[in-house]
Amino acid sequence: MNDVTDAGAMFRQRLDGVAADIERVLERLLDDTPLAEERARPKRLMDAMRYVSLAGGKRLRPFLVVETAALFRAPRERALMAGAALEFVHCYSLAHDDLPAMDNDDLRRGRPTAHRQFDEATAILAGDGLLTLAFDVLAREETHPNPAVRIALVAALARGAGLGGMVGGQMLDLAAEGRFGGGKVTKLGGAEVKLLQTMKTGALLRFGCLAGAILGEATPDRREALDRYGTLLGEAFQIADDLLDVEGDAATVGKATGKDAAAGKGTFVTALGLDGAKARLKDLVVEAESALAPFGRDADVLKMAARFVAERKA
Amino acid sequence: MNDVTDAGAMFRQRLDGVAADIERVLERLLDDTPLAEERARPKRLMDAMRYVSLAGGKRLRPFLVVETAALFRAPRERALMAGAALEFVHCYSLAHDDLPAMDNDDLRRGRPTAHRQFDEATAILAGDGLLTLAFDVLAREETHPNPAVRIALVAALARGAGLGGMVGGQMLDLAAEGRFGGGKVTKLGGAEVKLLQTMKTGALLRFGCLAGAILGEATPDRREALDRYGTLLGEAFQIADDLLDVEGDAATVGKATGKDAAAGKGTFVTALGLDGAKARLKDLVVEAESALAPFGRDADVLKMAARFVAERKA
Repeated sequence: MNDVTDAGAMFRQRLDGVAADIERVLERLLDDTPLAEERARPKRLMDAMRYVSLAGGKRLRPFLVVETAALFRAPRERALMAGAALEFVHCYSLAHDDLPAMDNDDLRRGRPTAHRQFDEATAILAGDGLLTLAFDVLAREETHPNPAVRIALVAALARGAGLGGMVGGQMLDLAAEGRFGGGKVTKLGGAEVKLLQTMKTGALLRFGCLAGAILGEATPDRREALDRYGTLLGEAFQIADDLLDVEGDAATVGKATGKDAAAGKGTFVTALGLDGAKARLKDLVVEAESALAPFGRDADVLKMAARFVAERKA
Repeated sequence: MNDVTDAGAMFRQRLDGVAADIERVLERLLDDTPLAEERARPKRLMDAMRYVSLAGGKRLRPFLVVETAALFRAPRERALMAGAALEFVHCYSLAHDDLPAMDNDDLRRGRPTAHRQFDEATAILAGDGLLTLAFDVLAREETHPNPAVRIALVAALARGAGLGGMVGGQMLDLAAEGRFGGGKVTKLGGAEVKLLQTMKTGALLRFGCLAGAILGEATPDRREALDRYGTLLGEAFQIADDLLDVEGDAATVGKATGKDAAAGKGTFVTALGLDGAKARLKDLVVEAESALAPFGRDADVLKMAARFVAERKA
């Protein structure tokens, strides 16, 4: 029992440590992007990009980059660069997903969403700017001295964030809500829910784990192990999210709950049932832990991360 | 006189040749992006990405990549890959700029804009998908076998497309329209118009010329010459655009004209006067041609491109 508590405290400390470091790196990257001249930095756009990406949060995605990179003793500052790029992509996607034409959310992490705080045009452009900045960051020598490593990161992030990943998943999600079929909601089965979520949420979490392997120039089997861990973690994350939508309350979660049920489309909970979803979540944690076997005790913190993702309350 | 006509015909042929080739490459790239599984290709999103990017047009930006790369005898297929990435970015920016929250345009190249043809959410996601795909394409070995060259392309495109480039320029443009100041239009002076347009339109055209130098692994002075050519061409392009907005008619131009004047913000025409803008345009063509001096007769087609940009009617 003490062991578990210690591990939990250790995990929390490492998670908070990355969150503090990444905040510093994001701040700097938003501030020092080379421009033709100082006037070429439209203040309102910068303010919105900062609002969207410096909003705090757990910073789980950069944490995954930092901790998987640490398995290979890759320098932390490099992992923070790749983690910052990933976080910029995550934050852009939130700003766009919240738009009136998309999910039409007013609240995000307990604050007004970007288009409520600024306006729609600014929210769209801030998202576009953050997505572009992510690739700018990955292309910098500071991220890794070897251009082959940097280009591998670019390729993997583009694949995870694009039409076969996050953007495609968001589109499937809107389609399931009946957005394009005259309001006819599609009740998704288990396989469809899994595909949709693998793309919409899973792909970026998976990239977070792959990024560490890329930065660490991992052997194929170790890269494969982290790829598998990332995939399992992504599914666990989404099931936990669906459970929170049913069982969580808005104040703790920081956004409206019950929305998925109201939308009528399928979630892991509707596809598997409440108990089925909870059982699957338990299995996923065990599988994610065993995927990390090749790394031994070095991967303890990542094992804790799987538990944390499954048991989180927000 | 005959020389000029021959050069004009030669230029047209080369321009049309790139347009035909790039259409084929864009088609293929939209079709063969590797996905986890076939269902992971949301049809409506693909349709919208195709609608936005296979809409034809002059394909001036890929043309610049192909013809600047040809100065270094870089393989055409590689230049077409980089040109396709650039065209995807250009097309994404049109889809987002046309949105109701942005310029609110119904017509683009004589067809309904993406959000009119599909819907706003689909137009937003199609843009996001195309921007992401651009970096995916640049990261592929097919674009260049040397990862250092590919990452240099990624860095340059991200810089040109981001907050210090196109996205920032769009923001300055909306601000000048009084969008964020309670409708108070800012009448821009010459320097402000130039900065805004250098970012909004010039940065991508400049990238098109730089991309050839990067693909050709040019010496610094030759890269510098193309950078200068691209910068001058970008300014010429925008002055011609402002002249078209005043003197062109909607049917030929393929979009509404007179909008800039109606918006009341400054353009090159309001800042320099009609005659001043025309004189500046002439000077720019001469300067752009002389920037190409280091390449001798090899650059004849690029010299014609500068004339074409200045004299275009659409």
